[in-house]
Amino acid sequence: MFFIVITLLVLFSPVIPAVQDRDDKFLEKAIEEAYRGAECGDGRPFGAVVVQNDGVVVSCHNMVLRNKDPTAHAEITAIREACQKLNQIDLSDCEIYASCEPCPMCLGAIRFSRIKRLVYGAKAESAIVAGFTHKQHLEIKKAEGTIAMLAEQLFEKTKSMFPS
Amino acid sequence: MFFIVITLLVLFSPVIPAVQDRDDKFLEKAIEEAYRGAECGDGRPFGAVVVQNDGVVVSCHNMVLRNKDPTAHAEITAIREACQKLNQIDLSDCEIYASCEPCPMCLGAIRFSRIKRLVYGAKAESAIVAGFTHKQHLEIKKAEGTIAMLAEQLFEKTKSMFPS
Repeated sequence: MFFIVITLLVLFSPVIPAVQDRDDKFLEKAIEEAYRGAECGDGRPFGAVVVQNDGVVVSCHNMVLRNKDPTAHAEITAIREACQKLNQIDLSDCEIYASCEPCPMCLGAIRFSRIKRLVYGAKAESAIVAGFTHKQHLEIKKAEGTIAMLAEQLFEKTKSMFPS
Repeated sequence: MFFIVITLLVLFSPVIPAVQDRDDKFLEKAIEEAYRGAECGDGRPFGAVVVQNDGVVVSCHNMVLRNKDPTAHAEITAIREACQKLNQIDLSDCEIYASCEPCPMCLGAIRFSRIKRLVYGAKAESAIVAGFTHKQHLEIKKAEGTIAMLAEQLFEKTKSMFPS
């Protein structure tokens, strides 16, 4: 039993630090991007790096202020740029490294891009505590009656155009 | 009592159909956009219209296929285009009409844009039932150790650059 444990340790222990180093390396790049973006005034301090195999596809930061685009968070910018660069809409062979835990918008974007793995540094809570957040009331109304029925019909009427 | 009820009905009843008609009108435009987008192959059948006061700022549909951008949902496209057109990052004086209940990514974008009101047509569930969804496993890892500490430090170190 002791021999088996030792063998397993010898066999598998080098793998863990290697993956750790790889993850740390790309995450460090995302953190550097975050600083760069804040320093040049492009946006808040958030960075994201998309990796394919072991190579960096794109390294981006928050571009909200620069692009005057409230959706231009680091992760969304990175996904858009990676898709353009790779000329593909599906990033299922890619990973994303984010300096901070993605917000629901960015997490949605990561899922839509089919990225297979997300590694993040800081907790989202830390960004909120430091004041990197905002509150705004949003009134939400679900339509009713005929117009709601017309909206519901959309999917059935166009379904055949999108074979799964 | 009867007189008060009648007076209230006379006073307020014209307001309700007017708002309803206004909402229906813009929502109908969003539905038309959704059909247009699907028919020309730009993306799945989703439309969104941004309104300022009583005027349409932009009317957009899903551009995921056309732009090869998995984040180019109708609402995100509309927010981006509205910000460009109005040359402002804050859409708090605008409303958004969406043919379908926004996904978490788009709802996040709507909140970040500070749009004050959202009116939607179909339920998100209807889109899912019709097959307009996808499933993909995403592995999520929270970094630990030194690199996580470096990521956490980002906010404190850059906070002063972003006065609230």
